[in-house]
Amino acid sequence: MTILTLTSDFGLHDPYVGIMKSRIVQRAPQLQVIDLTHQLEPFAISAAGYWLYCVQPQFPPGTVHLAVVDPGVGGERAVVVLEAGGQCFVAPDNGLLGLLAQAWPASVAYRVGSAVGARLALPTLSATFHGRDLMAPLAAELAAGRITPAELGPIHRLGSGALRPGQFQPDGTLLGVVGVIDRYGNLLTTIAASALGEIANPRIQFGGQCVRLVRTYLDGARDEPIALINSAGMLELAVREGSAARKLNARAGDPVVVNMPAG
Amino acid sequence: MTILTLTSDFGLHDPYVGIMKSRIVQRAPQLQVIDLTHQLEPFAISAAGYWLYCVQPQFPPGTVHLAVVDPGVGGERAVVVLEAGGQCFVAPDNGLLGLLAQAWPASVAYRVGSAVGARLALPTLSATFHGRDLMAPLAAELAAGRITPAELGPIHRLGSGALRPGQFQPDGTLLGVVGVIDRYGNLLTTIAASALGEIANPRIQFGGQCVRLVRTYLDGARDEPIALINSAGMLELAVREGSAARKLNARAGDPVVVNMPAG
Amino acid sequence: MTILTLTSDFGLHDPYVGIMKSRIVQRAPQLQVIDLTHQLEPFAISAAGYWLYCVQPQFPPGTVHLAVVDPGVGGERAVVVLEAGGQCFVAPDNGLLGLLAQAWPASVAYRVGSAVGARLALPTLSATFHGRDLMAPLAAELAAGRITPAELGPIHRLGSGALRPGQFQPDGTLLGVVGVIDRYGNLLTTIAASALGEIANPRIQFGGQCVRLVRTYLDGARDEPIALINSAGMLELAVREGSAARKLNARAGDPVVVNMPAG
Repeated sequence: MTILTLTSDFGLHDPYVGIMKSRIVQRAPQLQVIDLTHQLEPFAISAAGYWLYCVQPQFPPGTVHLAVVDPGVGGERAVVVLEAGGQCFVAPDNGLLGLLAQAWPASVAYRVGSAVGARLALPTLSATFHGRDLMAPLAAELAAGRITPAELGPIHRLGSGALRPGQFQPDGTLLGVVGVIDRYGNLLTTIAASALGEIANPRIQFGGQCVRLVRTYLDGARDEPIALINSAGMLELAVREGSAARKLNARAGDPVVVNMPAG
Repeated sequence: MTILTLTSDFGLHDPYVGIMKSRIVQRAPQLQVIDLTHQLEPFAISAAGYWLYCVQPQFPPGTVHLAVVDPGVGGERAVVVLEAGGQCFVAPDNGLLGLLAQAWPASVAYRVGSAVGARLALPTLSATFHGRDLMAPLAAELAAGRITPAELGPIHRLGSGALRPGQFQPDGTLLGVVGVIDRYGNLLTTIAASALGEIANPRIQFGGQCVRLVRTYLDGARDEPIALINSAGMLELAVREGSAARKLNARAGDPVVVNMPAG
Repeated sequence: MTILTLTSDFGLHDPYVGIMKSRIVQRAPQLQVIDLTHQLEPFAISAAGYWLYCVQPQFPPGTVHLAVVDPGVGGERAVVVLEAGGQCFVAPDNGLLGLLAQAWPASVAYRVGSAVGARLALPTLSATFHGRDLMAPLAAELAAGRITPAELGPIHRLGSGALRPGQFQPDGTLLGVVGVIDRYGNLLTTIAASALGEIANPRIQFGGQCVRLVRTYLDGARDEPIALINSAGMLELAVREGSAARKLNARAGDPVVVNMPAG
């Protein structure tokens, strides 16, 4: 039982996802293909990378993740495969995998070389859809165990991307950002529970406002912005049965600050 | 061939559905996993329950339905399994299963007890995502036949929820409500064809307006609100190639009245 | 390994797609069921037909495509199966398959006759959902190889639909239209690369404006409308990391004109 996950900004209004799946099942019908999301905003590289970073612990070793948010398709950007935590991530090298690579210091990325086309009997690349022509077949072959990342090409230094894990500043402040805003309007941040745990009685601030740290959504009053550790082990800002994004007028990339209480 | 269906308000913008599927296929890769919908409005408990009530006859015996609309996650609400019509329904006990339970008087609900975690080797519950930690693995194990509802815990009296089947009033009027509004703007009601059939020449009213009962969408004039028995055997209000919701300014929960013709 | 694809205007807010899948997997659990799209605009017959025409080369021989955009359900319109390019297309005969039939002159369409119901043990048709009652089971049986198109009924002359392949006019102009607008706002036209290739230095016009022909999205300046041959081999109008539909104020059906350069 091997899982291949799919993440993209293709949306579901067009058959682009189905076309990739055609290529996958023709090569490896035995895989369990699971959609993570295809409804990222067009060209939302950071959101794709944030979600992969969050979901990685939810999948078993051997899982292959394919992520196609690729505004540079047809240009010089590399296609890479990152080995991290016993799983493989296939994506264009446009920063998408930067957060994951930082979170897994022992991870290794390989640049997909031109010899792979012949080895895997890939079609000629189109100018606009390398998800179909290269990345989907490659992910299928990796998941099927017929090729390994190290066979794909040289070790590659990944572009770092816009997101990095929340970090302590010289003054002891823990600084992160909103990584994505989910469907409910929850603000998922780059601050991990483990980092937050280093601060006794942490004081969480967003947009100049203090946000109370609680355990569950139910611990918030109606319309009160709250903070909690979510199911991915990340600091999340929420409003009970409401939208923190709307309440706090928040956007992806906005800073989230955690301080020790004064005095 | 066993089917496991999924219903939620998770949307498709985030990987929450994919995360649940990861847990399911790891436990039971042989299942046929079918999405019913994940695009319910956030916290739309009644809509989830209405759809399960409607779709139940479309699935074979042995099917397990998992429905996660769970604003009370992390609180005291129970997780339950309802056996009805030869199928199992896994959901939080927040009224979601009330309509089904009323429609199947011989159905039995079981409250999932704390011993289930050890029995099924479940992870520690997170504070925010029991769909992943409890309900999805449980649904997979039920569908795989490795545990039965009666082994889960004591028989439980379900909360009744906001919806109930359309009912005759003391004056002979048949009274129902709009259960959900579908993508086309059709109004799907809680009035079953069997109840409607007890009234000769029924007179259907919505918002003070009479709506003509026809057989197919094509029997309506353009822009005319019509009523028909839909493919689920329920009374539905529609506009041919248009939106009854817009035409009638309707919302879920609005009353639908059926009378005998006067005189 | 046989693929069955699904295309509809059902949307994903309601369980209609899942209900069709229930019927399919009960008859043929071994199929690879792939969603192309269910988020066509309600009653968007032309868009469904355009996408099937585009995606056909992406699927292997033996694939069965089921397309349900069916405003005439319950009326006199036929249900047909088109054999084209080694694949089968199941749809209502409302013009949906017209573009495909024109593109495959050797294709043959069969009208599904009334004897099929008994042969395939179909349920009584509902008045509103022949996708569930007839087309999904039929597509499953075709894909499973238990019935062939020629056994379904007489050869049928398909309705032609609103779209036809881009064509040369008497004055040498190549005239096409926007077939669909995709999620990115790209305008996918009915002009094939092969037709465009017959014009040296083609001059592409949309809405009175000249659009430069380039190779990849990256060849466009920011905010510049460009034209390219897309991954389906069709002429596409686009804006790099932007929306050509918005930039050009375009709608499906709008004309696209290709001329030889003057002088």
